[in-house]
Amino acid sequence: MKRHPILQSYDLLKTEVKAGFLRFRIAEILSDIYQKSVELLDNEDRIELKSKVEGKTYFAFKRGKKISRAINSILFNPNLDAWINFREAMKANSIDEISNENLSKLLYSMAISFCASIDLIKDGDQKTPGTFFEYFVAYFYAWRFGIEPQNAIDIMTPDEGSTKLHTDFIFDLGVKRPKFHMPVKTSSRERSIMLWAHQKLLDGVYGIQRFIGTPVLLAETKTDKSKKEVVEICMPEQWRVYQLYVAQIRRIYYFDLPVAYSKLQDEFPPLVVKPFGEFFHEFDDLKNL
Amino acid sequence: MKRHPILQSYDLLKTEVKAGFLRFRIAEILSDIYQKSVELLDNEDRIELKSKVEGKTYFAFKRGKKISRAINSILFNPNLDAWINFREAMKANSIDEISNENLSKLLYSMAISFCASIDLIKDGDQKTPGTFFEYFVAYFYAWRFGIEPQNAIDIMTPDEGSTKLHTDFIFDLGVKRPKFHMPVKTSSRERSIMLWAHQKLLDGVYGIQRFIGTPVLLAETKTDKSKKEVVEICMPEQWRVYQLYVAQIRRIYYFDLPVAYSKLQDEFPPLVVKPFGEFFHEFDDLKNL
Repeated sequence: MKRHPILQSYDLLKTEVKAGFLRFRIAEILSDIYQKSVELLDNEDRIELKSKVEGKTYFAFKRGKKISRAINSILFNPNLDAWINFREAMKANSIDEISNENLSKLLYSMAISFCASIDLIKDGDQKTPGTFFEYFVAYFYAWRFGIEPQNAIDIMTPDEGSTKLHTDFIFDLGVKRPKFHMPVKTSSRERSIMLWAHQKLLDGVYGIQRFIGTPVLLAETKTDKSKKEVVEICMPEQWRVYQLYVAQIRRIYYFDLPVAYSKLQDEFPPLVVKPFGEFFHEFDDLKNL
Repeated sequence: MKRHPILQSYDLLKTEVKAGFLRFRIAEILSDIYQKSVELLDNEDRIELKSKVEGKTYFAFKRGKKISRAINSILFNPNLDAWINFREAMKANSIDEISNENLSKLLYSMAISFCASIDLIKDGDQKTPGTFFEYFVAYFYAWRFGIEPQNAIDIMTPDEGSTKLHTDFIFDLGVKRPKFHMPVKTSSRERSIMLWAHQKLLDGVYGIQRFIGTPVLLAETKTDKSKKEVVEICMPEQWRVYQLYVAQIRRIYYFDLPVAYSKLQDEFPPLVVKPFGEFFHEFDDLKNL
């Protein structure tokens, strides 16, 4: 059976990122994936979902019996021109002129259109959307920082010499400059303590806050496909406990920011959870916080 | 559609544990589940699996196109008499007379026969085996310690007064006596850092080693159903890093102990990973280590 054109482009992305994210080729493949995903979804039916999330509305794409993940109606605005403009702004180094709102819509639309397409093409495949999302986010981080990510670092030990620690993406700005640690997940759910555990591990190995943690997540929506209902699964009280007792995470970015987490920065001590679009505007400050 | 008799017994278990684990009723339901699972599996075909695990052989049960999880041929020895003898020994407080080997076989056979039955009855259901396994292990812990588990503890905070921390099973032996924290999972895989994260959290909230961590796991086997091949997914080097830099776990128990983890106690500093059967013999020492 011939592999679906979207999956062929995804295979290409997987191969190409091995040679580095900071390449014109990667942006070209992302364009191609975005275009193919939008074309596919344009031909599918939409069904409204009952949103149990305050202030947000969701729908899903439907193909036969298959229903895609929930899609935020406000953020979803598939528009290839916005992506072309964004790429121009990348070249001209003028991203600051694009509003947070437009950035959020563009990035959300690109990420979710691929994930929703996979939901319709394949059967219960969580791995493909997850891996795509990792590469997608790493591409923008790499471009913003101007460096390639690493996925492993050396640990010195008194007995074995040195051993490799496998990590999520690390962006190392260089000697005596900040190092960013960026786990990327489509959702955290009941596994969210892992974000703090990895920070604690890096703190333990290299010293507290030598690595700045900035996890990036897609959404925390959960869809009941028989009831056609969407909820957000959040544990803000548990997150405050992790931030107080396990380790300190500097920022958590979401493509579709859950309501319950957005409020965590208003309380003391704050835990700053923000839309991913803001990363593009604040990344210079992040290094100096 | 009528719910399968094994699932009816499982539903009953879920209801009954709410009233406590230290009850004759729970043992009766476990007997019933064991008997029904063994009867079901007795009528199914077995297929040999190609074991990529040094020194272990595995097979699986097969029903039509469905293939169960991998089953360790040496440990699997379904035998209702062994369970009746074990219950007699519980009453007589003479578990010490049962060898580690026989304990391991009995407990493994009970746990895996339910999980394998669910693999054949249902379709990709990981939740039912996971929840059953939690209750199954908690029952034996509760009985051994003579106390009921808790699933939440209070955290004092200067501002909010106190807030609840939701945990895995906690067995609190009382004032100025040890408190055990026992996560239970059918496998840990790439989520294993969570075991150390929960220990670090409890250390952070209550002081280092006020809670003694003794996670219990079923196995780390992974079956490639098309190739009919079994591997064990283990990361012993990463585990040593977690134990050195995140927190200290006192014991990790397995029903089917992975080869790579069994060797961790022979190196310095040791990380003690053992067959679950040994818990019954060493639990008095555990409190004083």
